Amino acid sequence: MKIALLAGDGIGPEIMAQARRVLDALELPGLELIEAEVGGTAYRNHGHPLPGETLASARDADAVLFGAVGDPECDNLERHLRPEQAILGLRSNLGLFANLRPATMFPGLENMSGLKPEIARQIDVLIVRELNGDVYFGEKAMRVLEDGRRQGYDVMSYAEDEVRRIAHVAFRAAQGRGGKLCSVDKANVLETSQLWRDVVTETHADYPDVELSHMYVDNAAMQMVRNPGQFDVIVTGNLFGDILSDQASMCVGSIGLLASASLGERQTEYGTFGMYEPIHGSAPDIAGQGKANPMAMILSLAMLLRHSLGREEDALRIEKAIAATLEAGVLGGDLGGSAGTAEIGDAVLERL
Amino acid sequence: MKIALLAGDGIGPEIMAQARRVLDALELPGLELIEAEVGGTAYRNHGHPLPGETLASARDADAVLFGAVGDPECDNLERHLRPEQAILGLRSNLGLFANLRPATMFPGLENMSGLKPEIARQIDVLIVRELNGDVYFGEKAMRVLEDGRRQGYDVMSYAEDEVRRIAHVAFRAAQGRGGKLCSVDKANVLETSQLWRDVVTETHADYPDVELSHMYVDNAAMQMVRNPGQFDVIVTGNLFGDILSDQASMCVGSIGLLASASLGERQTEYGTFGMYEPIHGSAPDIAGQGKANPMAMILSLAMLLRHSLGREEDALRIEKAIAATLEAGVLGGDLGGSAGTAEIGDAVLERL
Ligand SMILES: CC(C)[C@H](C(=O)O)[C@@H](O)C(=O)O
Ligand SMILES: CC(C)[C@H](C(=O)O)[C@@H](O)C(=O)O
Repeated sequence: MKIALLAGDGIGPEIMAQARRVLDALELPGLELIEAEVGGTAYRNHGHPLPGETLASARDADAVLFGAVGDPECDNLERHLRPEQAILGLRSNLGLFANLRPATMFPGLENMSGLKPEIARQIDVLIVRELNGDVYFGEKAMRVLEDGRRQGYDVMSYAEDEVRRIAHVAFRAAQGRGGKLCSVDKANVLETSQLWRDVVTETHADYPDVELSHMYVDNAAMQMVRNPGQFDVIVTGNLFGDILSDQASMCVGSIGLLASASLGERQTEYGTFGMYEPIHGSAPDIAGQGKANPMAMILSLAMLLRHSLGREEDALRIEKAIAATLEAGVLGGDLGGSAGTAEIGDAVLERL
Repeated sequence: MKIALLAGDGIGPEIMAQARRVLDALELPGLELIEAEVGGTAYRNHGHPLPGETLASARDADAVLFGAVGDPECDNLERHLRPEQAILGLRSNLGLFANLRPATMFPGLENMSGLKPEIARQIDVLIVRELNGDVYFGEKAMRVLEDGRRQGYDVMSYAEDEVRRIAHVAFRAAQGRGGKLCSVDKANVLETSQLWRDVVTETHADYPDVELSHMYVDNAAMQMVRNPGQFDVIVTGNLFGDILSDQASMCVGSIGLLASASLGERQTEYGTFGMYEPIHGSAPDIAGQGKANPMAMILSLAMLLRHSLGREEDALRIEKAIAATLEAGVLGGDLGGSAGTAEIGDAVLERL
């Protein structure tokens, strides 16, 4: 079993260190860990945010655990050298097309949400975001038109197979949860969305036990505030998924607690190859101060164990230890508490 | 002075009737009203959701008051015949590029929001949405690729002049409000957004008194839940504006109270030519029952008087009458009350 550890920038290395302590404590037999550089750190040391060596290590592993990238000092670099490009490069080069972003209220944390507690309490949604297509990866150009005007240009598109494979992931996820799938698009304006809607509807034939609905993205953004409890699984494209999943995570109120999985098609000996990362970013403002909450990172490790290594029991052990730590009131600064990075790591390990 | 009245579908005619009573009560000298059909109604009577005659009446007027379109019976028509196309057709044919969507908490209604009252109370944002470009109006296709796969395809783009004219509208709006402008884009992924960001930054040179910031759309969707009070004016493209303005309106909690203006470049004798409509839709489920809340429609009339007819005083009179009606507890079903359409109209007229 091989895991590639890509800690990245800002608070990445600090929170990765705690996830690693948890991983060590599990004493998985025959586990090999490979560390590699990514993001602004990699740019400084190797001239590129995603060096070939890092990509090779990731590809060679059964799973990738990813910290965070983003570095204010790199903001004015050309686009292809900026830290974020490392994430996009990993997603596309590793064929990670299915992004799973669960947003669930942790008991006792209802007050952290911007939503009313009685509304926030009901949030238990899995957002399945397509991650390899859409306007993210279409042709792009910054060009000068014949009349001399500058124009920015990006092509949005989906082909039917791209929609079908993510639809299957979402329908299967719905079968394993509440049996309800809501597909979000903007089919009243976009042909890309119309195809999306058609193919999701066609795929539904294979899953008669799942209740399928369609919703326009503007309405979905409203419903996520009005009554997020209505959602079980949401499936949507890359761009709308970016917006809605961030909105949903803030509705839960504790972005320092939310993990995500990005899965590909490749099956390893133990499960599905994937990359796992917290929803939050590199938080350069608190980097190096031992203040960052490592819980989302540790919960990302739990997702890794579940999906890529077939170790459901270890995943549950970690998730229970986190829940117990929260219940014991060991809260990071993001949750209004004062526990530091290592202190939270200690508390989780104690309860493992 | 000419106003074109386009009542549309569903609850459109009912709420338009109340706006018209308010307009009559103002007894504007020399006012001419022209009624025209639009949406599903127009499709049924004329075979098109935006008949040439309706477009001509709108073009010929100083302002357009628009109810709502949308009709479940038309959902399976070809895209270009669906009711929503009437809105898109009016926006593009009339050159209405600047959509102003104010979202402000009405005192006493803090509890209607899904957000906590202490957060909701602080919302006072004007969203300035570009309305004539972006992926809404680029080349589109539903096509079959050489290998036989179906593909949906839409081009997203902005040219510099399109960004500049909406940036000017937004900077000027910020000068007239809190002096803060936040431009929302996805410049870390999209060239269209990179151009947007560059041009907004360039335009800032003309407005040194306005504080400009930039925010990614995923972050904006989070901030709108976490701390919407931080925003004064937001300027953004057509697609992101669609999503964020609906989200913002739900954060205010009373979508039955929110009005919008869509302005063009043309100056009339009295102000700027524009179209005015409630944010909410045609609500076919309650159509014809006298239950719809006409307040957003009446507030749209107030915006019309302000921007297109230069009658700020009449606009304020209406807005005060609405506020007084709300304070008196005359609430529609959308606000948990039981007042009907005509009853609310009566109450507003009484306080005018
Ligand atoms: C960093 C950025 C390119 C990325 C995205 O837009 O996908 C991020 O927002 C995310 O959601 O993982
Ligand atoms: C009806 C639809 C085409 C329209 C849009 O997306 O612009 C609506 O959602 C709006 O915001 O006015």
